[in-house]
Amino acid sequence: MTSTLILLRHGNSDWNQKNLFTGWVDVRLSEQGVAEAKRAGELLAESGLKPGILYTSVLTRAIQTANLALEVADRLWIPVKRSWRLNERHYGALQGLDKAETLEKYGPEQFQTWRRSFDTPPPPLADDAEYSQVGDERYADLADAELPRTESLKLVIDRMLPYWFSDITQDLAAGTTVLVTAHGNSLRALVKHLDGIGDDEIAELNIPTGIPLVYELDDDFRPTGPGRYLDPEAAAAGAAAVAAQGKK
Amino acid sequence: MTSTLILLRHGNSDWNQKNLFTGWVDVRLSEQGVAEAKRAGELLAESGLKPGILYTSVLTRAIQTANLALEVADRLWIPVKRSWRLNERHYGALQGLDKAETLEKYGPEQFQTWRRSFDTPPPPLADDAEYSQVGDERYADLADAELPRTESLKLVIDRMLPYWFSDITQDLAAGTTVLVTAHGNSLRALVKHLDGIGDDEIAELNIPTGIPLVYELDDDFRPTGPGRYLDPEAAAAGAAAVAAQGKK
Repeated sequence: MTSTLILLRHGNSDWNQKNLFTGWVDVRLSEQGVAEAKRAGELLAESGLKPGILYTSVLTRAIQTANLALEVADRLWIPVKRSWRLNERHYGALQGLDKAETLEKYGPEQFQTWRRSFDTPPPPLADDAEYSQVGDERYADLADAELPRTESLKLVIDRMLPYWFSDITQDLAAGTTVLVTAHGNSLRALVKHLDGIGDDEIAELNIPTGIPLVYELDDDFRPTGPGRYLDPEAAAAGAAAVAAQGKK
Repeated sequence: MTSTLILLRHGNSDWNQKNLFTGWVDVRLSEQGVAEAKRAGELLAESGLKPGILYTSVLTRAIQTANLALEVADRLWIPVKRSWRLNERHYGALQGLDKAETLEKYGPEQFQTWRRSFDTPPPPLADDAEYSQVGDERYADLADAELPRTESLKLVIDRMLPYWFSDITQDLAAGTTVLVTAHGNSLRALVKHLDGIGDDEIAELNIPTGIPLVYELDDDFRPTGPGRYLDPEAAAAGAAAVAAQGKK
């Protein structure tokens, strides 16, 4: 028996707009992001795919995206599960900094290491920094040691995959079509696992915003073929735009 | 230990606007309803109440209301549980009929019986009728005998209260502030239980739309005092407007 997994990266946010590193800072969708989410809902509706459960991070921009898309697709009523394990990568001390200024100040090599190195996290964010998540009610159930102060992609995988195995695959095993609405790096982490992408190759993978990415999975929750975007042309253009980020 | 329960009736829908009996028909909020939901979010935010879990029906207008209110109150990230047991009363064969025409055709006595009798349901809706819910995917897990074809308020209580005891009170027992976003009659059913209102008196109770109603509950999930609306003046005006419904 195969099951269907749909991945959806949230659209443009207020801070994408301003070209700031966001990470765990809880910003909202921009008007463009709202339009992208609605478009994702249209693509879902046209595809005939019928997600039976929604997974989201606990960040507002991913939840807004899911709510808007499912409202357009007429499936707001499906059950919802949220987890911090689907959150964006924590960007450490970069959270709140301007991407172009950071590129200029630290140079392209350091900049690219922070953005795309597999296992080098940025410097940690201080607990008393403006954009720290320490004390944020939504993480009250996490042990202090579990709450990230910075993350590499490797660390995102380490905290995301347990949830994939403990929760998401259980719904897939029951034959439910699963929609995961999350972030650039939590979805890159999942796609790396699904497609068996190497630690070096993953730097080149960019997931475009607002375009559902569909996998058929076998009994072992491995893809039976490559993931397919519901709008391949827009996806190619979107991935190129993500890759160009940080360049003014 | 006391716990806090917040009840929120969804705002004006497309069919309220058209003065049609709605029941389980899955219509959307009107523009007015969207504004009411956002206002409810402002009231929540101003109150300082912090719902830690959301319960909704599986009807779009209640879910839209919750999503809009929680977005304004900056609490979209809280866990969500949905159940058909929180749905509006099933209006039977009246679903889709014009309220004013129905009043004119059947007279005020029959009309008021259908709207406000405690235990007389309207005639059942045929399974092949346009607005039947038979075959609706969201009720696929219900036994056929469990899926209503019409309901009195008594029948709403019979299917709602089990969920109150099995699920909602469990979160209250854990000290979580619970937000229930639902419908005129599922909330009347709950308020009847909470306030110990008699079968005859409940006809007079009208819950206004879009204004959070807050109860403090004791260890036995009984109110420690009367429920209070977060905007009492607007609530009084809103209840009067509901009572006047059906009159052109």
